[in-house]
Amino acid sequence: MKYPPPMQNISFLASLVLWSAAATVSSPRGFLPDTAARQSQWEKQYLALPDASVIRENDRVLSAEPHHLGSPADEKDAQWILSRFREWGLDATIETFYVLFPTPKERIVEMTSPTRYRAVLEEPPVAGDPTTTQTDRQLPTYNAYSIDGDVTAPLVYVNYGVPADYERLERFGIDVRGKIVIARYGQSWRGIKPKVAAEHGAVGCILYSDPRDDGYFAGDVYPRGGFRPEQGVQRGSVADMPTYPGDPLTPGVGATQKREHWKLSDAKTLTRIPVLPISYGDARPLLAALEGPVAPAEWRGALPLTYHVGPGPAQVHLKLAFDWKIVPAHDVIARIPGSTWPDEWVIHGNHYDAWVNGAQDPISGQAALLEEARAFGTLLKKGWRPRRTIVLCAWDGEEEGLMGSTEWVETHADELRQKAVAYLNTDSSDRGFLAAAGSHSLEALVNEVASEVEDPEKKISILRRARLKKIDAAKTPEDRKEIRDRELFRIGALGSGSDYTPFLQHLGIASLNFSFEPDDGGGVYHSIYDDFAWYTHFADTDFTFGRALAQVSGATVMRLSDADVLPFEFTALADTVAKYIQELQKLAKEKREAAEELSRQIDDGLPQAVADARQPFVPPQPDPAVPYFDFSSLENASAALTAAAREYELSLAKFREKGTASENPARVVEINRLLRTSERALTRAEGLPRRPWFVHYLYAPGFYTGYDAKTMPTVRESIEEKQYAEVNREAVRTAEAISKLASQVREAAKLLNGESPERR
Amino acid sequence: MKYPPPMQNISFLASLVLWSAAATVSSPRGFLPDTAARQSQWEKQYLALPDASVIRENDRVLSAEPHHLGSPADEKDAQWILSRFREWGLDATIETFYVLFPTPKERIVEMTSPTRYRAVLEEPPVAGDPTTTQTDRQLPTYNAYSIDGDVTAPLVYVNYGVPADYERLERFGIDVRGKIVIARYGQSWRGIKPKVAAEHGAVGCILYSDPRDDGYFAGDVYPRGGFRPEQGVQRGSVADMPTYPGDPLTPGVGATQKREHWKLSDAKTLTRIPVLPISYGDARPLLAALEGPVAPAEWRGALPLTYHVGPGPAQVHLKLAFDWKIVPAHDVIARIPGSTWPDEWVIHGNHYDAWVNGAQDPISGQAALLEEARAFGTLLKKGWRPRRTIVLCAWDGEEEGLMGSTEWVETHADELRQKAVAYLNTDSSDRGFLAAAGSHSLEALVNEVASEVEDPEKKISILRRARLKKIDAAKTPEDRKEIRDRELFRIGALGSGSDYTPFLQHLGIASLNFSFEPDDGGGVYHSIYDDFAWYTHFADTDFTFGRALAQVSGATVMRLSDADVLPFEFTALADTVAKYIQELQKLAKEKREAAEELSRQIDDGLPQAVADARQPFVPPQPDPAVPYFDFSSLENASAALTAAAREYELSLAKFREKGTASENPARVVEINRLLRTSERALTRAEGLPRRPWFVHYLYAPGFYTGYDAKTMPTVRESIEEKQYAEVNREAVRTAEAISKLASQVREAAKLLNGESPERR
Repeated sequence: MKYPPPMQNISFLASLVLWSAAATVSSPRGFLPDTAARQSQWEKQYLALPDASVIRENDRVLSAEPHHLGSPADEKDAQWILSRFREWGLDATIETFYVLFPTPKERIVEMTSPTRYRAVLEEPPVAGDPTTTQTDRQLPTYNAYSIDGDVTAPLVYVNYGVPADYERLERFGIDVRGKIVIARYGQSWRGIKPKVAAEHGAVGCILYSDPRDDGYFAGDVYPRGGFRPEQGVQRGSVADMPTYPGDPLTPGVGATQKREHWKLSDAKTLTRIPVLPISYGDARPLLAALEGPVAPAEWRGALPLTYHVGPGPAQVHLKLAFDWKIVPAHDVIARIPGSTWPDEWVIHGNHYDAWVNGAQDPISGQAALLEEARAFGTLLKKGWRPRRTIVLCAWDGEEEGLMGSTEWVETHADELRQKAVAYLNTDSSDRGFLAAAGSHSLEALVNEVASEVEDPEKKISILRRARLKKIDAAKTPEDRKEIRDRELFRIGALGSGSDYTPFLQHLGIASLNFSFEPDDGGGVYHSIYDDFAWYTHFADTDFTFGRALAQVSGATVMRLSDADVLPFEFTALADTVAKYIQELQKLAKEKREAAEELSRQIDDGLPQAVADARQPFVPPQPDPAVPYFDFSSLENASAALTAAAREYELSLAKFREKGTASENPARVVEINRLLRTSERALTRAEGLPRRPWFVHYLYAPGFYTGYDAKTMPTVRESIEEKQYAEVNREAVRTAEAISKLASQVREAAKLLNGESPERR
Repeated sequence: MKYPPPMQNISFLASLVLWSAAATVSSPRGFLPDTAARQSQWEKQYLALPDASVIRENDRVLSAEPHHLGSPADEKDAQWILSRFREWGLDATIETFYVLFPTPKERIVEMTSPTRYRAVLEEPPVAGDPTTTQTDRQLPTYNAYSIDGDVTAPLVYVNYGVPADYERLERFGIDVRGKIVIARYGQSWRGIKPKVAAEHGAVGCILYSDPRDDGYFAGDVYPRGGFRPEQGVQRGSVADMPTYPGDPLTPGVGATQKREHWKLSDAKTLTRIPVLPISYGDARPLLAALEGPVAPAEWRGALPLTYHVGPGPAQVHLKLAFDWKIVPAHDVIARIPGSTWPDEWVIHGNHYDAWVNGAQDPISGQAALLEEARAFGTLLKKGWRPRRTIVLCAWDGEEEGLMGSTEWVETHADELRQKAVAYLNTDSSDRGFLAAAGSHSLEALVNEVASEVEDPEKKISILRRARLKKIDAAKTPEDRKEIRDRELFRIGALGSGSDYTPFLQHLGIASLNFSFEPDDGGGVYHSIYDDFAWYTHFADTDFTFGRALAQVSGATVMRLSDADVLPFEFTALADTVAKYIQELQKLAKEKREAAEELSRQIDDGLPQAVADARQPFVPPQPDPAVPYFDFSSLENASAALTAAAREYELSLAKFREKGTASENPARVVEINRLLRTSERALTRAEGLPRRPWFVHYLYAPGFYTGYDAKTMPTVRESIEEKQYAEVNREAVRTAEAISKLASQVREAAKLLNGESPERR
């Protein structure tokens, strides 16, 4: 083992962290010696329980039929999960919500000139794959929450359809007003594409999966390989999730009532223009019919044609009509009551609804979660009693926009704010490398647990494999050095795209997301081909990574539920905050230099001089100068958090030396209250500008990325979107949240030291 | 004008250079005031003479028929060029050589399993393009100097077929011994591919043009656009040009005799395995039939299939038989005798032979050269008399391996070593940006001349447009700053691939190559589609860049032929030499760090940990440690050259102040002798290791790149090829050449100052 590095290279602070992170087996973080020994025994038993063949059977049963929100098979799956939970001795119920869910009545994409082509819009069954033939129960290929529409207009190819792509089109003198755009999937969450298209005046939007991204360019297509076949289509929601997820009609409140009276205009997150996804088989004739400038090299996909931008001469007719209805969403919730602190909740969830059969998305994660539940049931029978309450959740309607989780969180918001310790999510897993992201106060915990789970292929820990992969992927020697020298393996930040969002970003509950990911991604995402046959041929074929997922998630839940002092750790968070500030400073500097460079180039006549004289060209305008920003508030808050985190680690070390938590149970309860609500300090009740539903000031989905996190989002997006007047203000507001957290951590440290708390 | 930068930012030395480079109109470098004024008048007249419509007609006539080496149309073109030269009053003759030139008797590429496919190996005519129908006179698609062969073996895809690609294959556990490899064109000169394949034990080699590189991915294919159509094939020589060019049977001596008795085994530059180029239409079924590992992402092209590596199951039969014969190569040589110094020769050449019609390659360059000759003829009639002899050359047989130029140079080597001032080449031009490469002692001259020629599209100088393009393409702010701050625009180094090679690299004659290049390259290179219809639709359609080429080449020739003191400049060369040394140091450091990193990764088990468990994988072995090298001899030689170059500039400035060169004509003759032979100082009579024909120690074609230059080639290739024991020795040998040049420059400086030369 080369990790962690030898002691003599480690600072005093790092050595403190090391105490808890490296010496895991004997003393996991947050456990005093007496409880640590007991915990180690239970965890050892737990890790031996998950069984790949049971996970396989869970996956087979739950993905046996198309089971989208509101479908009979979806309700059947909910009942099956409920029965399993109960069979294993857990206290389980179904909570039902009522949410808006449109399904297609009519879908037309046709090219009317220069030649006629009517898009197929069907995914053909595959011989030898039985569930692909369940045509009568499959949802058609479409994007949910597109508005109805009937438009005919010239087509423009807009690459991935993100804002930078429209800037490039401006250089060609092309605007998309009154046009239908065709964008390829990728680089942003799909709902961003029609949003940006509408902002630029487009009247319709077609999405397609280019074979460059997940078709034959990436690998052999199904059924020869795992990638998207010619007529495969990515379904998916296009509601404006970065504004708010969940039922479009009930932002911020639980949709517990089956309303009879409602207006579509109450739904603020529908698209402004009609949008439909198509296959690359259907996209090919449309793209082949475009003329105008040849697309920039980085815009070109893998279809065997020359990508042109248009507009036209391809003229396209796009007609969409939906059945707008309210459907029930059934969340299955199981509880294991805490023996010591029943009002402290450790929550682990994942959705079970799918666009079609969803053997990978989401059943691979749900099947492992159920195996964790079965193992917990077994441990309970052997006498294990978690000290905190464990809540296991199977969410419905995630695919439509985190419906089940969001409505449940909104319904139980007050209780969750009080009781929730952490939320763990395990959506859509495969084989390969551990992908762990979430709250950095849990980074040390993730490192501890992941160092104890073995990779089924390589027989090293899943942590070590992930770390070696990151070293391998590092672009510079400096990046490699950082990964090697840092005692903890960095986890990513969470944006959105799965059910952690309401917990983390609406309530400020520390959250994690775990999965295993291959190098080459999957190619059948949200199609009828994401099924059991596909998964058992091309993903985690023997479910050994499903077992590893159940091991790492269950052990994480057990640590959180049984620790004397909750295993939060703040030096890694403080280090991450400092890194984000450096990133913002770097971003500002790069923006400033880019604006200066552009001005200089414009002064020198460079854009005209290098432009291809045979293509249309509109020279760029200068960007506004980028002022110097005041990041001092953030830097001071970061310094305070770093100091508080060190103080907390020192106090925790002393507290542990004393060896017992029982001398003053009320003090421990208060320390744990401060710890479990620490993430809440990073929120502001008024929420983010433009989107008050999101309250977290450290992590948010990007307004123009959707999936990807923007860290310190209000500051970062102000810079990225050139709203420079807002930057200093948002830096102060973000700094206030960080300072609040620093105070809370310092208070916890004082309590650990036996001092009286400064304030309550 | 932003360039050059304001005076106050320029060092004393740079300001000296600036004197001659920036103040061009009144005082071009090397001209004393009285001759400068006269020169300026003649150049002004010259620049007005080239006529785009004449160049168009030259191109049309010379490309009217397929005119490869040895064909009737080739000889007809030679006679036409001879007539034109004579018509314009030049003293012109044809010199004929006799060289080995195989043409195909039989060509078979067929897949025998798992399915049968017989490659078409034909380029179809295009409707509306009359010369594509001249099927009876077109050479078949083939690679000249492939050996005969008849092999059947499994196929392996080797990407571009360069050494690094075979290292990647080793990681898959794949070796090509006994296999036929298929490599795509690009990234190296084509002859490298069968050479490297044979080194690895392959028994046959198929080359093809992937649509990613010059087909539909790059742009619309002919005739809709200018790129390679489905059945288009790149012909070309695969003789081992980096070993020696010219007639394979007569290395180092002119092939002036039509030999009757010769053995094929005397030809040392034939391939060791049979090789044939095919179209992407023919490659597609072969590549589609491969299995084995999926090719790494950067190996994948634009065919609509998943690229696999193999080996097999595709089994391929490759059969080739050639008619090995000796054919005549006719060089057309025109002379304008020098009025003052007839034994100092300024040479400008380009080939006229083509693989087929060659409207671009080479006629675009030849047509402009002829227009330069016509303009010179016009000036002669008006009384202009160049002071040095101008030699204009139309070479034959370049396509087969620089036959005409190499045999001529080898025949006249002694005279050329004495008399040649410089060689200018102008092969295959298009529209867009000036590409200038060559001897850096001529960099200042190129800057001066190119600043006075107007870009036909942008109405700024071709120099400024090239400079702005380079700024635009720069990858870092540091690179941009270097381009902006440096007083001179850097010219590139010459590798090989056209007729400058025998002049520069066999004799050490200062050389330049000029052309205009678009952003997007051409797609019909060496096919039947490189013809007049194609050129006038998709390249320099109105021949205005042909005019600019004649302007910049003719003005360069006039400066060289009329200057009092030859316009060589050594501070730019010294700066370039210093830069190359830095590059070598950086290369050694990177190699050293890469070897250390690889060792560490192997120690850590990283390669196994990150390898895809579903693909075959052979872990890498450690690289040998990279020692620290002694570059001090190079650094001292570089310092000496820098000092000598400064001394020369100071002396030249003083010499010019005196204002007349006539006081001591013998001294000026001696100074010019030292200048014109200065490039010879960079050669060593024994040549490069492995390839004694090449004698230049600053510039050579890469042994494994072919086209691309390796600067300080023996040092660089020793490092690149891990022959670390040779590096110090080669550094010393290269330093000796640079020191020799420094002495010669210092001697010229002393003579300019009126001092006696140190030695003769």
